[in-house]
Order: sequence, then C-alpha cells, then structure tokens
Amino acid sequence: MQLNQETIINQDLKENIVIEEIKVFAPATVANVGCAFDILGFALENIGDEMIFRKTSTPGIKIISKGLGNLPTNPEKNVAGVVAIEMMKNEDSSFGLEIEINKKINPGSGIGSSAASASGAAFGISKLLNRNYSTHELIHFAMQGEKLASGAEHADNVAPAITGEFALIRGYHPLDMIVIKAPKNLYCTVIHPQIEIKTKEAREMLPKEVALKDAVIQWGNVAGLIAGLHQSNYQLIGRSLQDIIIEPQRAKLIPGFYNLKMAAMDSGALGCSISGSGPSVFALSEGIETANAIKAAFDKVYFDKGIDYHLFVSAIGKTGSRLIQ
Amino acid sequence: MQLNQETIINQDLKENIVIEEIKVFAPATVANVGCAFDILGFALENIGDEMIFRKTSTPGIKIISKGLGNLPTNPEKNVAGVVAIEMMKNEDSSFGLEIEINKKINPGSGIGSSAASASGAAFGISKLLNRNYSTHELIHFAMQGEKLASGAEHADNVAPAITGEFALIRGYHPLDMIVIKAPKNLYCTVIHPQIEIKTKEAREMLPKEVALKDAVIQWGNVAGLIAGLHQSNYQLIGRSLQDIIIEPQRAKLIPGFYNLKMAAMDSGALGCSISGSGPSVFALSEGIETANAIKAAFDKVYFDKGIDYHLFVSAIGKTGSRLIQ
Repeated sequence: MQLNQETIINQDLKENIVIEEIKVFAPATVANVGCAFDILGFALENIGDEMIFRKTSTPGIKIISKGLGNLPTNPEKNVAGVVAIEMMKNEDSSFGLEIEINKKINPGSGIGSSAASASGAAFGISKLLNRNYSTHELIHFAMQGEKLASGAEHADNVAPAITGEFALIRGYHPLDMIVIKAPKNLYCTVIHPQIEIKTKEAREMLPKEVALKDAVIQWGNVAGLIAGLHQSNYQLIGRSLQDIIIEPQRAKLIPGFYNLKMAAMDSGALGCSISGSGPSVFALSEGIETANAIKAAFDKVYFDKGIDYHLFVSAIGKTGSRLIQ
Repeated sequence: MQLNQETIINQDLKENIVIEEIKVFAPATVANVGCAFDILGFALENIGDEMIFRKTSTPGIKIISKGLGNLPTNPEKNVAGVVAIEMMKNEDSSFGLEIEINKKINPGSGIGSSAASASGAAFGISKLLNRNYSTHELIHFAMQGEKLASGAEHADNVAPAITGEFALIRGYHPLDMIVIKAPKNLYCTVIHPQIEIKTKEAREMLPKEVALKDAVIQWGNVAGLIAGLHQSNYQLIGRSLQDIIIEPQRAKLIPGFYNLKMAAMDSGALGCSISGSGPSVFALSEGIETANAIKAAFDKVYFDKGIDYHLFVSAIGKTGSRLIQ
C-alpha cells in the first residue's frame, strides 16, 4: 500500500466502517538482565499495554492514543505507526488500519514501553490480517518501531515482547533469536522512579572499550545466567546477575540505586540491576513471597525521596503479545 | 606431611614397598571452545594420559615419567608433583607416593597436556587415599599444577579433565564451576601440528582492551553456545562458535589455520577454532561420520606442509579422570 500524508491524516471518519477488530495485550519487558547487555530480555506477565486493532473500510493508518504518555498520532512518528506502515507495504490498499493504544507502560520507563507498542503492533496486525509471519519476521517488523524510539534497531525488548519467556538475541546479522523458558518459580519486582532516561543518552555514556579481563568476567556471568535458566538453578542465576561493565556507569542516573540494590539483596533477591537503560530497577527472586518482600523494601527506600514511583511484582510472562477478550 | 629435598629425591627405592596401586585415565581437553575464552572447556573421550598412583612405604613423592614429552621428575617442577605436594600437606608422613605418568598428550599441544597431569593427579591421589574431596576441591588442587605450567591458575582445562562433559567456569572468586552435558551426538576432530606454542606467550599477544561492541557480539555467541548445548541444538552451537576477539590474534601462530577452518566447514563442521592457546585446532560436528570427514580434510590440508601432525576424532568425554583396569 502506498501511503501519502493525505491518506494518513485526512481520513473521513464518518464513512470509516470497522470490518474487523481484535484486542491485544503487549507486555512490558526487562532487557539486559544484569550482565547480558544488549542480548537478553524477558517478558512480564501482567504488566503491559492494551491495543485494539481495527480493519477499516477507509484506506490509511490511524493512531488513537489513550492512557499514559503523550504519544504522537502521526503514524510516521508513532512507534506502532511505523510498524504498521512497514507491514502495510505488503498489503493492497483496499482497506485501512486503526490502532488504539491504551498505554499503561510509561514511555522512558526502562521496561520496554516502545517495544510493547512495536511488538503489539507487529503481532496485532499479523493476527488481524491473518498473516502467518514467523516470529523472526514479527521481530523484524517490531525493530522498525524500536529504531524510531531509540535510534537503534535493537531486539532485546521486542523479541521477548513477542515470544514471552526469556529471549536471547545471539546475533543480528542475520537476526538469531532463541527462546529460553524461565524457571517456573522465578518472579520479578520492578520499581519505576518517575524520572525519564532517554535510551540514546544512556547509551552515549557507555565506554567504547572495555578491558579484556572484564569482558571475560562478564561473559562468564552471561554463560552462568543462561546455564542457570536452563537448569532452573536459582542460586546460579543469582550468582550470575552481576554486571561489572554497564551498571556502574548507568547507576549514576538512578537516585538511590545502590540503596535499592542492597534492600533487594537483604530481602532475599537472587540479583538486582537496572532494567534496560533505566530508570526502572528490577530484582529477580525465587517465589512470589520474596518478590513481595522486595517490593516492600523498595517502597521503604523510595518512600521519602520526594520522587514519584511505581512498584510492580510479576511472574515471567509465559506468552508475549497475545489476544485478549 | 613436611617435605624436604632429601625425602623427595633420595628415597631408598630398595626398601620402598607398594601398599596400594590404582590406574587412572586423565583426558585431553579443549578449552575456550571458540567464543568462550577462559570460561569453558570440554573433555575428550578416548584421548588422554594414563597415570599409575602407588601408596608406598617410604615417605616422599616420586615421579616416574614415561611416554611423550620430557617431564621433570623433581616433584616441585612437575605438574602432577606440585598437586601431590599440595594434597600431601593434609596427610601424615607415614607413607609415600609414587606417580607414574604415561604421557600420551604432547606438552604444549593445546589440548590440555598439563591439565591432564594435574587433574589426573588430584583425582588419583584422592582415590588412592580414599579422600572424599568435592569436585571443586579437586579442581583447586589441579589448578596448582596449571599455575606451574602456565603461570596462571586457570581452570578451563582442569575442570573438564575432572568432571567430563563441558565445564563452565562462571567465576573464580570463589571458584564457580557448572557441568553442562554435551548433546549425545556431538563429536570433535582435532589436528595437532607438532609445533609448540607456550600458553604464556599466546596470552601475552592478546589485546588488553576490546571494543564494547565486539564484547557484546562475543557474549551473544557465548550465550548462544551455552543455550545450544542445553537445548541439543547443533545448528545453534555451530552459529555460536565464532570468536571475533581471540582467534584472529592467535590464528597467526598456526600455519594454515584458515585453510583448516575452511576445510572443516566445507566438510560439514558445526564450527572450527583454536583449542586452548593452540597449536591444536578443533572442529565440532554432529555425528562421527562428519567428524571423520573433517579428519580427512585436515589431513589433506596438512599433508604436504612439511610439518608433522597428529589427528584425532573423539566423542565428548562423559566422564573426566577415571579409574581404569
């Protein structure tokens, strides 16, 4: 479908008839997972956006933004919109697409707000149009949205937002994604301080070079984490959740990061680090009781900081983006 | 047991009665495994040293060297000897130890010659004296031998030489070793050009710093390799066997390395890289037929090079050091 500004913007809504409609849940995701910078992410079970996809009679793409954030409704500037534009290139121009985003994940939170929009769009449009895109194809579409949001086509949020569980991005040329099932009793606690960190800026503060000996320590931990997930070895997962390269840099951006980390570890967390590029901080634990104890401990640390914050506890999402209702 | 030069060297053999004797097989090992520099190794099934351990009536440690290499028989300068000295510190001084090493792995080969001696010694002495040392304790003892051989207490050869299968060294402080079972149809082909590369020198040629983006590519491959091993996903193992940091440096030390690699890949190898610090080159494959085809291809590459070489095909060793006969 060829798009021009006119078809995008000046649709005549009065004549626009909804042919079909589906509702999709697109989960929040935690990327990097401590040591595994840029290559690993996991889906949360019950935290995410709701998106409605409508096949309409009038050609063009229309974005309706509800909920948190102040999302642009110009499809070319909206994360879900650019995914839709890309996917509609494969379709004829006889129908239109309306995407209603009920955003529940704050943009800039570090738990994959843009990835949820992008992945939800890729999944939702594929379902709405009965296209049997492979998981890798859906990730490719969703990466277009991430590119708009962060300037880089990374996949460590969009992949788990599509597949659920942990998603490993072994490499990008070509995209090589592997799903790793989470141990069944693994839970995640997240605190989201209401400050915004731009992924681009968080990326620019990283060192260009690292000592080989540090890189070896880091890939030892990456290997331990992947082995721990496969072997359902919670203690090994915990010992491996050490990031000696990225976390020390980005911790500076998050008020009280080390207090949060100490509070989580004292409450029995397996490990605690920065979610994506922050400011959200996540902790992993064995069992929901510990996850709730960490939530209370996070609350205590931030209670009198004078910064608004949100707290979540979630299992690891078994599915990623999915149909609801 | 306190040792002095006199008890070590000047034992009166005529009066030395053998109280007990065991025979041990100590396997050759492949460390680094492509991308997983310094953190991963695996045992070969049927290639290794034979060692005889004798509990004797005369106090002191005696080394008898047979087979390949020109091993020092002064225990303080012998890899198995220093392990024995360390372990005998926990024993009374009423008996002696005789270690006969029938070396079949050439020193400096890159398939864990010193590690076999060190691990065989740790395992053999523990068995001979009925000590129930844990795997981690045995690795610690064996690391003393590696320290003598290479100047560094690394464990990526000694660990698999003790445990069999793949051994992951997540970290060293404290030692954190995890066994990963090999997919059952995984085979290894090794070519050992008869040139010697000293681990110390091979280590000194490595860069002190690496680009963060390269480190990320490397730990993506490390993660893929660990996931592939757990999931018995041979193709994933193959895609992950890419070392962009160490191999390009050390390849220079091995005549015709890239010809060997190309020959292996053309013969169906999953991947091909340098074993340890070289000069041995290994290839992994699914099935013994492919492993044998790679052996023939290696042979063809080296046939007219004017360098002596040995060729091996082996399954991954299910056990590491073990009692034989």
